[in-house]
Amino acid sequence: MTPDEFRVFGHALVDWIAEYRSGLPQLRVMSDCKPGEIRALLPPEPPSEPEPMESLFADLRRVVLPGITHWSHPRFFAYFPANSSLPAVLADLVASGLGAQCMSWQTSPAATEVEEVMMDWLRQMVGLPQNFVGALQDTASTATLVALICARERAAKLSSSRPMTVYASEQANSSVEKAVRLAGFGPTNLRLIETDREFALVPHKLEEAISADVAAGKWPAAVVATIGTTATVAVDPVHAIAQIAADHRMWMHVDAAMAGSAMLLPECRPLWRGVEQADSLVFNPHKWLGATFDCSAYYVRDPAHLVQVMATHPSYLKTQQDQQVKNFRDWGIPLGRRFRALKLWFLIREQGVRALQARLRRDLANARWLAEQVDGSPEWERVAPVLFQTVSLRHRPPGLKGERLNVHNQSLADRVNRSGAAYLTTAVVGGTLIVRVSIGSEATEREDVAAVWSLLNREAKALL
Amino acid sequence: MTPDEFRVFGHALVDWIAEYRSGLPQLRVMSDCKPGEIRALLPPEPPSEPEPMESLFADLRRVVLPGITHWSHPRFFAYFPANSSLPAVLADLVASGLGAQCMSWQTSPAATEVEEVMMDWLRQMVGLPQNFVGALQDTASTATLVALICARERAAKLSSSRPMTVYASEQANSSVEKAVRLAGFGPTNLRLIETDREFALVPHKLEEAISADVAAGKWPAAVVATIGTTATVAVDPVHAIAQIAADHRMWMHVDAAMAGSAMLLPECRPLWRGVEQADSLVFNPHKWLGATFDCSAYYVRDPAHLVQVMATHPSYLKTQQDQQVKNFRDWGIPLGRRFRALKLWFLIREQGVRALQARLRRDLANARWLAEQVDGSPEWERVAPVLFQTVSLRHRPPGLKGERLNVHNQSLADRVNRSGAAYLTTAVVGGTLIVRVSIGSEATEREDVAAVWSLLNREAKALL
Repeated sequence: MTPDEFRVFGHALVDWIAEYRSGLPQLRVMSDCKPGEIRALLPPEPPSEPEPMESLFADLRRVVLPGITHWSHPRFFAYFPANSSLPAVLADLVASGLGAQCMSWQTSPAATEVEEVMMDWLRQMVGLPQNFVGALQDTASTATLVALICARERAAKLSSSRPMTVYASEQANSSVEKAVRLAGFGPTNLRLIETDREFALVPHKLEEAISADVAAGKWPAAVVATIGTTATVAVDPVHAIAQIAADHRMWMHVDAAMAGSAMLLPECRPLWRGVEQADSLVFNPHKWLGATFDCSAYYVRDPAHLVQVMATHPSYLKTQQDQQVKNFRDWGIPLGRRFRALKLWFLIREQGVRALQARLRRDLANARWLAEQVDGSPEWERVAPVLFQTVSLRHRPPGLKGERLNVHNQSLADRVNRSGAAYLTTAVVGGTLIVRVSIGSEATEREDVAAVWSLLNREAKALL
Repeated sequence: MTPDEFRVFGHALVDWIAEYRSGLPQLRVMSDCKPGEIRALLPPEPPSEPEPMESLFADLRRVVLPGITHWSHPRFFAYFPANSSLPAVLADLVASGLGAQCMSWQTSPAATEVEEVMMDWLRQMVGLPQNFVGALQDTASTATLVALICARERAAKLSSSRPMTVYASEQANSSVEKAVRLAGFGPTNLRLIETDREFALVPHKLEEAISADVAAGKWPAAVVATIGTTATVAVDPVHAIAQIAADHRMWMHVDAAMAGSAMLLPECRPLWRGVEQADSLVFNPHKWLGATFDCSAYYVRDPAHLVQVMATHPSYLKTQQDQQVKNFRDWGIPLGRRFRALKLWFLIREQGVRALQARLRRDLANARWLAEQVDGSPEWERVAPVLFQTVSLRHRPPGLKGERLNVHNQSLADRVNRSGAAYLTTAVVGGTLIVRVSIGSEATEREDVAAVWSLLNREAKALL
């Protein structure tokens, strides 16, 4: 493809995306295609001869769109907001167009230095102390794995050969369990600590577990505190956990993947008091904030330790500037790196911090509004506090209990999703199946939240 | 930003990229900016108010471009080719525009099913057997870490608690050493096996190392065979290594990150005889092939084992189709996943396999041509066989030896790079500093290779 052909096809695809975004309200949210349907539309063998771009464009509409669940849809309430804000889309296009490999400073100095500055802008935006420095990672899963590997390496120096243990709340994201397994701690050395009625870790239960492990000859290596758990977006008491971690010389990792963005709002900051004592922290600008996946911000207090764990020094990667610069390949797992900071740069500048804050506040207000509707309806129950943008609820018609009530609420969610008019997901907390309404798509306004609330009521009635 | 504004700015940026690509020959290849120069151009604090897109565009030229080392430049001969082919750039734009999160089948069925088909197209294109299935990863570093963690978990079932050892050639990529460390084998349990004069692993040296470890009570868990080492793009004898791995029930991982793309050419396939016995294999379509970073293809023979190591089953990720589909989040480390397969789909269809093959053959012929020039010049030495697209050479003027000769060649490379007229990198193999001319940028033609050869000669003369 020549640059001139690229102009023509590029303009067409930009228009296609603009049209897609404008037309989202008319599309069903969750794809209704069946397993194997898309695969059956593709030839089993690669083409030996070129195909015209027009065929590819046609296939975007014929093959791809029917198989897309629309994460930017105004009535997307599932999982978590994963905004791909249009200025970030543009920046990502520039990164692909430049095609720069940003593994070392020398291999594209601008990528490294823009990333340094963006990590510091973000740090200021969420109110972290100045000694927090970091780098972008792909996801919080990877960042949590990096954190636990770093914790393991630090503990190995202290503990000689005692088996190490890791702690998190029973509401922690599954990536914690996965990271414990991948980092080789062994699945029997993870302790999932009891939570309180608001689904936050109970500090004295953590203390008890640690004491029992120490008595049994184990070495408590790390604790993960969560700011915004996955099921109900609960908040662990970071300050109390930090104290316990310090007492036992444990690594404290803070998983703020989801709710970290909320810390752009000073009024939310009391919720992560103690965070300044974290050894490592991750939050995902590619979720609520809009920085187009993947873009996960990982901070540490001791970058020298991170680099020591992650760095390699082969002759073929040496550059003249190695002593003066950051080579971000040594701040995470992958060697190759994309120019991801460009997305943050475009997003933050095109929006400005105040507009980003206003959008987050809109979503918090919408969640509070929905919580009020739930609280005011006798047949509905709000199952968890609404600290941020997620409302955990269930329908509770008279006479239904236990597993039958759970099945009822799962059926309710399935009906809403199959209708195509909204998409939301469920979770089980303490045996209770909850319907999660996660608000925060860029396009979601009050009327969309009102619409999902009506839909829930209508489908609940229809179910009975 | 509204969709209509996106049209306007999107068209402008598409044009900007087209102009950038057309104008590459006029730009210096390696950025000549100094550490801190770019950072100094950015405000230390994020803007609270929005900035016009025109300012961002201006900064692409003022701030970003001077700090970019141009990986798509026709005279880029450093590291490895990292092509970001224009059809792949367009596909990546569509992926950002859709903003779909592809962690589970249900969260965008098209992403999963296009990825399944693309993994199979690629498999056929490089001649792997039908029982190889896989998923896209970000990089070969991550894929190798995944492989070694899977090897560790399989060995743990067999070995009870004997310390495990891992083997690779002394020319293996630094990501192997890093993966051994991150997976927790311990740095003292990696054996870097001697290579022959062509920088390929010597099988009987591997046998010896394994025997010594077994005698010392260790459990040989995994061996990494490389197809296209980083320094000289050498090829390990996979067939012989596979035999040894089978004898000892070891995991064999094949790192074909760089040279895997060459296997699109049937005439190159004899170089990876034995690969069908690999437990896992990675190659990077984001390198020579052009699939815009990041896009690394990871294959395994036993997907059930991979999923067993990687999967989690929290209630909030359950979907109705879990028993019928692949949830690719369980095929690697990150939970979140981008719609990366779209890049392969666009690239392969817009080009067709024959055109991709023709481009690779062009690069192989250019490398052979350069090798002939070196071989025909008494003051130059070719330091390794030219199996693919990289020529390892050094200038060898009379009277210079040992460390002085190494310093001379490093200075030669530095002069070439500082000139801006070409960019190449060095490596040290067996104490010899070599200059690597890695050919394979999409834009690189014979005249560009001839130009870097003239430049090397001119700068070598100037140095003396």
